[in-house]
Amino acid sequence: MKFHTQTRTWVLIALIMLTTITLSAEGTIEQQSAASQSEAQAKYVFLFIGDGMSTVQINAAESFANAQVSDDITVQHLRFSKFPVAGLTTTYDASSLITDSASSATAMASGKKTLSGVINMSTDKSSAYKLVSEYAKEQGKKIGVVSTVSLNHATPAAFYAKAPSRGNYYDIAVQMTQSDFDYFGGGGFIYPDGKNKDQENIFELARKAGYTVADTDREFHALTSGTGKVLAVNERLQSSGADMPYDIDREPGELSLADYTAKGIELLSDDPDGFFMMVESGKIDWSGHANDAGASVRETLAFDAAVAEAIAFAEDHPDETLIVVTGDHETGGMTIGFAGTKYSTFFDEIGKQKMSFTAFDQEVLGPYKKAMEGRKARFEEFLPSIEDAFGLDYDTLTAVQQNKMRTAFDRSMGNEVIVPQVEDVYLLYGGYEPLTMTITHTLNEIAGIGWTSYSHTGVPVATFALGAGQDLFGGYYDNTQIFGSLMSAMGLTNQM
Amino acid sequence: MKFHTQTRTWVLIALIMLTTITLSAEGTIEQQSAASQSEAQAKYVFLFIGDGMSTVQINAAESFANAQVSDDITVQHLRFSKFPVAGLTTTYDASSLITDSASSATAMASGKKTLSGVINMSTDKSSAYKLVSEYAKEQGKKIGVVSTVSLNHATPAAFYAKAPSRGNYYDIAVQMTQSDFDYFGGGGFIYPDGKNKDQENIFELARKAGYTVADTDREFHALTSGTGKVLAVNERLQSSGADMPYDIDREPGELSLADYTAKGIELLSDDPDGFFMMVESGKIDWSGHANDAGASVRETLAFDAAVAEAIAFAEDHPDETLIVVTGDHETGGMTIGFAGTKYSTFFDEIGKQKMSFTAFDQEVLGPYKKAMEGRKARFEEFLPSIEDAFGLDYDTLTAVQQNKMRTAFDRSMGNEVIVPQVEDVYLLYGGYEPLTMTITHTLNEIAGIGWTSYSHTGVPVATFALGAGQDLFGGYYDNTQIFGSLMSAMGLTNQM
Repeated sequence: MKFHTQTRTWVLIALIMLTTITLSAEGTIEQQSAASQSEAQAKYVFLFIGDGMSTVQINAAESFANAQVSDDITVQHLRFSKFPVAGLTTTYDASSLITDSASSATAMASGKKTLSGVINMSTDKSSAYKLVSEYAKEQGKKIGVVSTVSLNHATPAAFYAKAPSRGNYYDIAVQMTQSDFDYFGGGGFIYPDGKNKDQENIFELARKAGYTVADTDREFHALTSGTGKVLAVNERLQSSGADMPYDIDREPGELSLADYTAKGIELLSDDPDGFFMMVESGKIDWSGHANDAGASVRETLAFDAAVAEAIAFAEDHPDETLIVVTGDHETGGMTIGFAGTKYSTFFDEIGKQKMSFTAFDQEVLGPYKKAMEGRKARFEEFLPSIEDAFGLDYDTLTAVQQNKMRTAFDRSMGNEVIVPQVEDVYLLYGGYEPLTMTITHTLNEIAGIGWTSYSHTGVPVATFALGAGQDLFGGYYDNTQIFGSLMSAMGLTNQM
Repeated sequence: MKFHTQTRTWVLIALIMLTTITLSAEGTIEQQSAASQSEAQAKYVFLFIGDGMSTVQINAAESFANAQVSDDITVQHLRFSKFPVAGLTTTYDASSLITDSASSATAMASGKKTLSGVINMSTDKSSAYKLVSEYAKEQGKKIGVVSTVSLNHATPAAFYAKAPSRGNYYDIAVQMTQSDFDYFGGGGFIYPDGKNKDQENIFELARKAGYTVADTDREFHALTSGTGKVLAVNERLQSSGADMPYDIDREPGELSLADYTAKGIELLSDDPDGFFMMVESGKIDWSGHANDAGASVRETLAFDAAVAEAIAFAEDHPDETLIVVTGDHETGGMTIGFAGTKYSTFFDEIGKQKMSFTAFDQEVLGPYKKAMEGRKARFEEFLPSIEDAFGLDYDTLTAVQQNKMRTAFDRSMGNEVIVPQVEDVYLLYGGYEPLTMTITHTLNEIAGIGWTSYSHTGVPVATFALGAGQDLFGGYYDNTQIFGSLMSAMGLTNQM
């Protein structure tokens, strides 16, 4: 389809040019090539990063969405996985096949590899890299950085900061206030007053630097294209932490990643030179670490809803907009297939899940543990809470599954348990609540979803592209090329 | 890069046509479009199918090959994963997210979905599908079918036969002899004399149908482009079974998949209408079922070596050759990441492995079991055999790993073992030899490679393309589109 449209465009351009200029055939072709490049130049550029999202997370979300509406097994793609160009991207960093989010975001932001934990600096931490967002800013574009997790977390940080360690949260946030970038939205800040709470508050620094800070829904909705530089943070974060809630836990009407993306478009698109906006869904990764497929698929669908905002904008600016959607690495070693279910999958099972593992820990298991302090908790008494939250009926489980869950309950509740020598406790729970982990593992296994790790993995991710310069993102290439292709699409040249 | 070349081609064609004909702009464009299609037509078409090979199997082979030669973590691509076009392909079949090889090969061969176990027939088994190989044959092309597993196994069968069940091995093989296709090479036949050994021998039927049968190395090497229709089967198969040995077990000088591919090129390329050749590596899948990464990576590298033969041919026929490399599904839920090794991988560990799980069963464990009949086998006595075959030093394992291995040894040897209630024996061994499975699992875990299943999984696979019509294989699409894109590349139209 696209192919023919392109062909027509080139041939039409050729016809038009032939009527006005006379050159050798070779000369004409060079002119054409230049013309095509400038035509392809992307004025409005979106980079969507699904943290921890590889092909399997995408395909699982597709299969889950499908299972909600139809018995037909035909896989319906997400909005972004329908994009005309799909590529495969390697994610290894300077020292490991398995990257972390810092080195991976560095690769995409700067085109250069570094070590895990390092943000936009060389492996010896002696020199800083120049970022695609900085080049775009120099070109006159407005810059936006959005994330569901804290804005000084590794992935968003890599689009405005340089730091020898991703753990330098306060310093990174200070760099944000000094960036002069135009829009920061979504999560809040880890250590907004410094690690020892003895530094000037980040929000104060931001205000001093000219940012309008919006941390209530009312203030958020009042933001308009005339507001100037904006720092918009979800109001719920002030009490609960620096990350936005999982989409599965989001209250009706509560601001979503899509809302922060739409606001970014509203604030940034008035610039005659366009914008560059990075939008991260950070908790596809977190649900991967915890092997929680129910949270993961809904998080990926919420990410897709955010991309939908960009698609709507692109429809109004089809020749000038580029949307790239990728992952920074895979997390959890997720697969659609589990030994126990063999060739079958039951994605409707994770549809019964009502909350994330985190919400279960905080809102169900935590309060129960507190209430049971000093008393011996009884497993049977707690079973209805598991069924309420995860739709998991204990009586339908195998003896082995029941045994595992009972043991995990005792471990979570601090009841005395003898650890059998045949068990590796880390492999079972990965440092999470034993009961919660056993619930999500059991539910996932019943659905036919497997996991191999509580960490990132080294498998390639998928990259999708739509719009001006989209063809730069096809093929199988390294994540450092994302930087180069974004630069090319914007007509920018790497000066370093 | 490619983009510009294409642009130049279109514009050149436009210039040439403008000098000779005068048409409305719209008319000229349609002419161009038709001209461009015929120019892209592929005369020599290779479809390489890595059975059970998804992105992870490819990336694991890349990482393994890399670890053999360098400490630098930079991933070097395989020859086929360097192809200019990479796509993502869904593999679900008519009733399940997780396909089998029959329905998957049917999708690629016919463009239509069916049920697992069915070869090129509708889901109600009432009608047969027409195959890309049959269309190509009608076009005058020679047809080749090559596989490392038996030629009447599901994947190769789907390129010449139609059957309500993949288990109808003899009937499928009979259809092969009746196909009039030009070259069959690689594995032998399951039930060559029928299931009850009461049918006419397949090799005899093939000879009667005009095939030259080559089942020794000498006969194989004597085959030339003048030989006519050929059935070439690995001589070792007559004693050991119907599949070629794993590449890790292949004797020096023994015929490889690359040899069978090269011979196919020699035999088929004299046709003025070109050829269509399907080449399957069937045992990437088998090593996936058995969670044997050491065999898998070497099998994928041998597959890559077979593709190299096609690449060499394409270099001599660059404008007329299309090479497509894909997988039919993923097997085993392989990931590059294991909970116990967290963010590290140690691919050199699987480099120490000297034989496949099958060879270990047949050549090491089997004879030992036989020798121990009636006696109680002693674990310590057998340990050196494990270290010889897999490079696994028992003394370096964790207590949990040691415990698992000792238990598995007792189970494999039939020593009395009480199965603890907390274990699911199928999850541990998947029906394979307990000891062998525990060895490969332990070795893989040490290397940082995880598995979730002994069956296929539902994750998308990668598809790579090089040559005439390569752009048809970019994007994210269903495996039924492989058929359509092959047809388009050859300038063929689906009549059904």
